[in-house]
Amino acid sequence: MLFFKLFLFFSFFSFTFSHDDAFNPHLLPRHLIIQYPEDIATQFHESDEELKLQCTSWRFAVEANNLSPWKTIPEECLGYVKDYMTGRGYRLDLERVSSEAGVYAKSLELSGDGKDVWIFDIDETLLSNLPYYVEHGYGLEIFDPIEFDKWVQRGMAPAIEPSLKLYEKILDLGFKVFLLTGRGEQHRSITIENLTKAGFRTWDKLILRDPEHHDKLATVFKSEKRSEMVEAGYRILGNSGDQWSDLLGAAPSRRSFKLPNPMYYIP
Amino acid sequence: MLFFKLFLFFSFFSFTFSHDDAFNPHLLPRHLIIQYPEDIATQFHESDEELKLQCTSWRFAVEANNLSPWKTIPEECLGYVKDYMTGRGYRLDLERVSSEAGVYAKSLELSGDGKDVWIFDIDETLLSNLPYYVEHGYGLEIFDPIEFDKWVQRGMAPAIEPSLKLYEKILDLGFKVFLLTGRGEQHRSITIENLTKAGFRTWDKLILRDPEHHDKLATVFKSEKRSEMVEAGYRILGNSGDQWSDLLGAAPSRRSFKLPNPMYYIP
Repeated sequence: MLFFKLFLFFSFFSFTFSHDDAFNPHLLPRHLIIQYPEDIATQFHESDEELKLQCTSWRFAVEANNLSPWKTIPEECLGYVKDYMTGRGYRLDLERVSSEAGVYAKSLELSGDGKDVWIFDIDETLLSNLPYYVEHGYGLEIFDPIEFDKWVQRGMAPAIEPSLKLYEKILDLGFKVFLLTGRGEQHRSITIENLTKAGFRTWDKLILRDPEHHDKLATVFKSEKRSEMVEAGYRILGNSGDQWSDLLGAAPSRRSFKLPNPMYYIP
Repeated sequence: MLFFKLFLFFSFFSFTFSHDDAFNPHLLPRHLIIQYPEDIATQFHESDEELKLQCTSWRFAVEANNLSPWKTIPEECLGYVKDYMTGRGYRLDLERVSSEAGVYAKSLELSGDGKDVWIFDIDETLLSNLPYYVEHGYGLEIFDPIEFDKWVQRGMAPAIEPSLKLYEKILDLGFKVFLLTGRGEQHRSITIENLTKAGFRTWDKLILRDPEHHDKLATVFKSEKRSEMVEAGYRILGNSGDQWSDLLGAAPSRRSFKLPNPMYYIP
């Protein structure tokens, strides 16, 4: 009986996969809709469910780094991304990554020679630009560096609270804290002001992008900076970032923590 | 007005984050439940929604490689993982990762010297052990290597159809296909039989774990094997696996594709 059930299941499995086109919940036989008007509600509901599944699948692909570089979120996922970013989903994910990183950090025995480092990215890792993205379609608008720079220069980005909690734990445990950001050097003073105002009271290095690194991919720029740290004798034990370009490449951290970000992609 | 709204939003944001305990939807004021019995339904619904959110958050932490090594899925997520694995969610994720990998593979210009390689893991990447896990709590039971070996020796694991589709595309494009699996050498002949029966008609190398590698972490074993490929002059252009230990470490692929797997973790 079990084998029969499994056979049915896998027949369905193969059958489903054999279609190139996505399942279209609108393709219900017409007469069903006419005969039973209540099915319209079901149909809308199914359509909502299907969209949610599709957008969840897209977000999974983002977070697992399976997507090719992308410029905007899928138009049909605007409502989904908005709900996620402003709802409990994002907060839960931030809390989980912060608490996992904290448990790991606490489990390490530091050498005491001041060479144990934790790297933090800034945007969408320590500071939230959500107030900007709320006004710019949650990643549906193509990124506008001039508008975004204006927002950065206001120094109003709030702390991501679970990251602030982790940050303080990391400092208290005795790690050296290096902030490694794709923000340009021209934003140094406002970045310091914003970080301080948001509660990030101290750090050991704040590394911004100087003009000579301006044209490099973030992965390359950050890999180079990490390699310099390793050459200077530092041990990179933890790295927190919302982009895979914060985490992958040369001189990787012993463990990396990927914060959620379904709004934009930096290669 | 906008600033006021944002202020309210971020006040809430900070407030929510300031609690250590997870939000508990059961903590509704008692009198509300007594006065309005229909709220009980809402309460159950909220509880379901909350569980779904929590388990989705857990699954994303798995897929983004944020969790410490884990032995079983969270007990409260059994229903969630079951629904995901046997429903459309898993299939959609498999289809997306297959199609993204296919687009990337097609975009590459191969050298024609027979040194361009795509690596595939086997379990939960080419072959599905879902029939086994259906019988073993979808990852809720602690992994039993003896029972699992019996299942492997039956050679009944079905193909993951979207992976088979990608596999054929990769072969057609002219890649060398190397299968790199944590399965032991003792399973070589049944693995060949199972793969063939499932539709994987040919490959260039099938690398299993020989006894000398038995005690190594999968990350180490697979890194060593990839390093050997690179030393032999191969270019690893693509790598498909359901575990981060398939993808991270030395001699990484130019691009890696993480297939979903919320049922088990291999370090």
